[in-house]
Amino acid sequence: MERAAIEDTGGYLVIDCALFEPDIPQNAGAILRLGACLGVPVHVIHPTGFAISDRNLRRAGLDYLSRAELIQHDDWPSFEAWRRNAGRPLIALSTHGCVALHDHAFRSDDILLFGRESAGLPDAATDAADAVLRIPIRPGNRSLNVAVAAAIAIAEALRQTAQLP
Amino acid sequence: MERAAIEDTGGYLVIDCALFEPDIPQNAGAILRLGACLGVPVHVIHPTGFAISDRNLRRAGLDYLSRAELIQHDDWPSFEAWRRNAGRPLIALSTHGCVALHDHAFRSDDILLFGRESAGLPDAATDAADAVLRIPIRPGNRSLNVAVAAAIAIAEALRQTAQLP
Repeated sequence: MERAAIEDTGGYLVIDCALFEPDIPQNAGAILRLGACLGVPVHVIHPTGFAISDRNLRRAGLDYLSRAELIQHDDWPSFEAWRRNAGRPLIALSTHGCVALHDHAFRSDDILLFGRESAGLPDAATDAADAVLRIPIRPGNRSLNVAVAAAIAIAEALRQTAQLP
Repeated sequence: MERAAIEDTGGYLVIDCALFEPDIPQNAGAILRLGACLGVPVHVIHPTGFAISDRNLRRAGLDYLSRAELIQHDDWPSFEAWRRNAGRPLIALSTHGCVALHDHAFRSDDILLFGRESAGLPDAATDAADAVLRIPIRPGNRSLNVAVAAAIAIAEALRQTAQLP
């Protein structure tokens, strides 16, 4: 685990966000900017489809990247080992989720997990999750963009747990 | 007003989204995809910084564009004439807003107005609005990406008015 925290939560447990093997740097950059603005640490689970220094990631994240709390994990087992040791609940977001986002009661230390733009989350990730949520969308549409989905889910989790800035 | 509706709400009033002279095609494409997925019509107020046929807009909107309800207005006065005639409330989102997003009580026929990525909304737009809301962010950060902000605000308005798909 590599921690590149500029600001830190000072040990308080807060909602975190985790990206499973992200494949589109623009989306990762947008989510890091979102995390910086909302005070939500972002975990990136490797392998990724791009380098963290990718110029498309930097372009989407702008100068917000220096204020984002980015925690990198070598792979899924490393992330899971860290998470279980920390005792943090894992809440997966998936188009196949059984529970609608707004029907879920978030905890203040939940980690919200988002899949690859191209392939979503593997069974290993949803099986490990304490809940698998979906954001309801109209029939005939496949999915929201992952950064847009992350924005909706993270804002709802922060609203419910009174953690909005 | 040019209406390019594939699907239509059948005359029911629903939350709409409006983009004031958008300047970044990727964001407009992402918001049109969001609108298609959530059933929210998207008004584009010209002039825009790109053509609606722009390839970056199409890349961000993917095939969702064909299911988005896109309404184009020649300019701000044309949009305002249409809105006032329709009797629809205007709710502006701005980093200078006085009321936090989640403290506002949305109406089911509100139109949520978003500014340019580069310059936000002009005074003429916020002056015309029934309310000017801000999404709270941590000090030291300028703003959220406009598509991310639209996702958070639209989802909250739909949640409050029981209009989620």
